[in-house]
Amino acid sequence: MARWEPGARERLVVAAVDLFTERGYDATTVAQIAERAGVTKSTFFRYFPDKRELLVAGQETLSRLLAEGIAEAPVNASPLEAVAAGLKRASSAMGPVNRKLGPRLKAAVAASAELQERDALKSVSLAAAMTTALITRGVPDPTAHLAGELGVLAFKRGYTQWSEGDRDAEDDRDAEDELAQYTLAALDELRAASASLG
Amino acid sequence: MARWEPGARERLVVAAVDLFTERGYDATTVAQIAERAGVTKSTFFRYFPDKRELLVAGQETLSRLLAEGIAEAPVNASPLEAVAAGLKRASSAMGPVNRKLGPRLKAAVAASAELQERDALKSVSLAAAMTTALITRGVPDPTAHLAGELGVLAFKRGYTQWSEGDRDAEDDRDAEDELAQYTLAALDELRAASASLG
Repeated sequence: MARWEPGARERLVVAAVDLFTERGYDATTVAQIAERAGVTKSTFFRYFPDKRELLVAGQETLSRLLAEGIAEAPVNASPLEAVAAGLKRASSAMGPVNRKLGPRLKAAVAASAELQERDALKSVSLAAAMTTALITRGVPDPTAHLAGELGVLAFKRGYTQWSEGDRDAEDDRDAEDELAQYTLAALDELRAASASLG
Repeated sequence: MARWEPGARERLVVAAVDLFTERGYDATTVAQIAERAGVTKSTFFRYFPDKRELLVAGQETLSRLLAEGIAEAPVNASPLEAVAAGLKRASSAMGPVNRKLGPRLKAAVAASAELQERDALKSVSLAAAMTTALITRGVPDPTAHLAGELGVLAFKRGYTQWSEGDRDAEDDRDAEDELAQYTLAALDELRAASASLG
């Protein structure tokens, strides 16, 4: 009988990202990831079909949440207000593990050409998910694409600021300090910047 | 002595893209690409270190041209006017071979997960090249990022319209019909769309 171990999924993700950074993506095996996470190889395979999917899984969840938030925004919401609703929905699913993961993931991506490609595809996929959700709401094509790209920029900028902030700062970061604040502030900043494109 | 064969580079690129579509990227060998292009394997290696670099080479040229156009725009040009100068410079380097290649490349990318990742990384790299060139001009950070993303969207939209237009249309496409017209029109359309983001 397959047994689901509490926290195993998160431990596997953290262990994988650390190993990718230390040894490179290609050189890291599923057995090493399982060992580092303190679970068996067969537990790994109950959560993920392979090491690549371990990275893709988060992307699919994120795309779904962004699209759901956009779909459920009020009928009269503007394109960027709908994107804000998507960011809020997706951000609220991110907790302390995701925050800790940010700098590690960044280091892993910087160290691996393969992870750079995956990371780029992730950005493109998130933009596509938001663009599709906006078009479904009736937002016309070029505006929907543009709003989707703004959404990805806002999510990435907000996530970086949230996860890489100085943890030793005097005004120690509040545990209540949520990702949504950062992604929505980044979206506001981008909206303001769009006025100075010329 | 290495001998450079006129047109070999372009023939190799067309042959590679066709084979990637027919057989998949992984299953295509350098020997097959060379044979289809009517050159020897050693001629292939005079142009590209491997089949992956055959795809990367175009991206680096494109990034360089976009950045050069932005760098050389008039000092008082707005961020989007500088992006337009980059698009113009890069577009002018694209001729009939690139136009023919568009639909084939699209088919190859649709058929291969690996090429989708490469294509995504290409978009991210082009945006980064433009963003960096804009920051060098003194454009502040969020505006520069946004303008870089708009530049990539405009290039991709313009290139698709240019290369996938109906070739059998009554008003047969003019040989003088240049990519720059399409990318600059797409940028104008995106600029107009940015006013309706809300």
